[in-house]
Amino acid sequence: MSEGISLEELQLAARNHGMPLEALRFPVTPVGLHYLLIHYDVPIVDAGEWKLSVHGERKLSLGLDDLRARPALELTATMECAGNGRARLEPHVISQPWLLEAVGTGRWKGAPLRPLLEEAGVSDGGAEVLFTGLDRGIEGGEEQRFQRSLPLEEALGDEVLLAYELNGASLPPQHGFPLRLLVPGWYGMTNVKWLDRIEILERPFEGYQQAQSYRLRQNEDEAGEPLQRMLPRSLLVPPGIPEFLTRERTVPVGECRLEGRAWSGFAPVERVEVSADGGASWAEAELDPPEGRWAWRGWRFRWDAQPGEHILCSRARDEAGNEQPLEPAWNLGGYANNAVQTVRVTVS
Amino acid sequence: MSEGISLEELQLAARNHGMPLEALRFPVTPVGLHYLLIHYDVPIVDAGEWKLSVHGERKLSLGLDDLRARPALELTATMECAGNGRARLEPHVISQPWLLEAVGTGRWKGAPLRPLLEEAGVSDGGAEVLFTGLDRGIEGGEEQRFQRSLPLEEALGDEVLLAYELNGASLPPQHGFPLRLLVPGWYGMTNVKWLDRIEILERPFEGYQQAQSYRLRQNEDEAGEPLQRMLPRSLLVPPGIPEFLTRERTVPVGECRLEGRAWSGFAPVERVEVSADGGASWAEAELDPPEGRWAWRGWRFRWDAQPGEHILCSRARDEAGNEQPLEPAWNLGGYANNAVQTVRVTVS
Repeated sequence: MSEGISLEELQLAARNHGMPLEALRFPVTPVGLHYLLIHYDVPIVDAGEWKLSVHGERKLSLGLDDLRARPALELTATMECAGNGRARLEPHVISQPWLLEAVGTGRWKGAPLRPLLEEAGVSDGGAEVLFTGLDRGIEGGEEQRFQRSLPLEEALGDEVLLAYELNGASLPPQHGFPLRLLVPGWYGMTNVKWLDRIEILERPFEGYQQAQSYRLRQNEDEAGEPLQRMLPRSLLVPPGIPEFLTRERTVPVGECRLEGRAWSGFAPVERVEVSADGGASWAEAELDPPEGRWAWRGWRFRWDAQPGEHILCSRARDEAGNEQPLEPAWNLGGYANNAVQTVRVTVS
Repeated sequence: MSEGISLEELQLAARNHGMPLEALRFPVTPVGLHYLLIHYDVPIVDAGEWKLSVHGERKLSLGLDDLRARPALELTATMECAGNGRARLEPHVISQPWLLEAVGTGRWKGAPLRPLLEEAGVSDGGAEVLFTGLDRGIEGGEEQRFQRSLPLEEALGDEVLLAYELNGASLPPQHGFPLRLLVPGWYGMTNVKWLDRIEILERPFEGYQQAQSYRLRQNEDEAGEPLQRMLPRSLLVPPGIPEFLTRERTVPVGECRLEGRAWSGFAPVERVEVSADGGASWAEAELDPPEGRWAWRGWRFRWDAQPGEHILCSRARDEAGNEQPLEPAWNLGGYANNAVQTVRVTVS
């Protein structure tokens, strides 16, 4: 951060909303507090005119009423941007400068994707499913619509949705009205908004958002690994009260109830630990009951706050053995930085 | 901007949401796209426990049901942060680094304030009304709750509301649930969120947000003038498609329908002009019919887009003769920068 954030990055930060961390108190994030990353512009869609086309062995065309008439599934899912934590990386990576707030949890309702793909006809040669949004722009020098593909076996998962509701109401424009993809457990870019077209492909999609962007690599010559599932992360609600500009926290002496939430796209969270000394020592937090596989899991910890300066941290581990690192691992795109959060507090 | 934005400013930009400018297409801003400036933390309020106290010659105590049972008024109002445009000022002013997006228009419904003040009893010595929110933090070295006062005659205005609904639903937490003040035409800080207490004062309030902050002044020794009503501003929807990082726009050759919205807290907008050469020449835009005194006014302009680089601008003038300047006027707090927006486009 020593060199500061440029005007271009600030323009992105002004449009792409983070979730203020006190909103971790809500098990389901209220609309307007869920994070948003919008590559191009929010398209404004007339739902009466809009149709989704699905291209398999046959072509289907469905309006919003057709989708709403199908069997529906509702699930609570935590979604995080793959670039969350980017602005904490050194050397500095220029893109949307997220600190820690690119997350939220929604109650998403929609039509499961699998039966639709089966109706369209999945040929034996099907390898991937490509999702195309209505949002259009230029990135990496290429004019494009936002497009991402999923391996066919992932697209056929029982919990992959074409979502038309968030938190019990129609999708807001900024979350993809009238329809978006929802792949629980995967990073945010997977969940293509303003869906226009779904197509079964016989060979891997090589478009910009798949082949150039959202890959873990050290340099441009490396193909790298595609980003898929969310690494484990725990965030804590900064306790006490903030200073307006610095956001430094002041906490009264005595028992302080720390709380936060943790998630992982790989496996259920099995442990959250808390440190009050910047990660030198750790103690186990109490986990709330899980609220479904794809929702973040609440945790709490009674901290005996003694006068002085303290650095609070929390870290999550999932049942697959993935644990948050203390220090981030740098990569070219600034992705998947799930290093432990630190919250500086003064107890007085 | 040459020196860049610091980590502290970025922390603010990540929590305080701007309205992406394509959302100017909506006459009423969808929840989640309206700008947000939250000084401290969003308090989470249990509406069942919450009471508003009103202190005049008598003390009143009202729950949310009491307020909802009173005669209601609904109005559409544009709200802008007094710090909108701050990040464009030189020398750089350190605070929430708004570019241009700190605006939105809501359909606010609530109980008019005047009858409540009259029930509480306005003494002859009443000078101001003080509004105290539940949000608490440290600013300017002082621990405080967010507090702002209004001159009594303004507080007695017919359209000053205690708002409990936004766009037809309960206030979202981030907009002040369960109750906020709404003073149409005034800058955003006036509209105290998470209201806890209203008090009629016999002498001017001298708290931080009134005496130190939100004043137009050149240095700390000057008392300065308090910020009140919104200066006129017009914003245009950036046409064409954006480049992801730079947000530079590409527009096809031919007729391009420019559109935007304009507002002023002083008087109705009477004219909007458009320039395609960075302000060297101007032509008048067509105004949409007004949608009430306090809502922004739509405008449109057919631009004949010819190949090359262009700088699009729009500027508003109100019926009181206030007009947007081409260059901002610097002040210590970085307030009220209503200089004309510039949008760089490449036509090809």
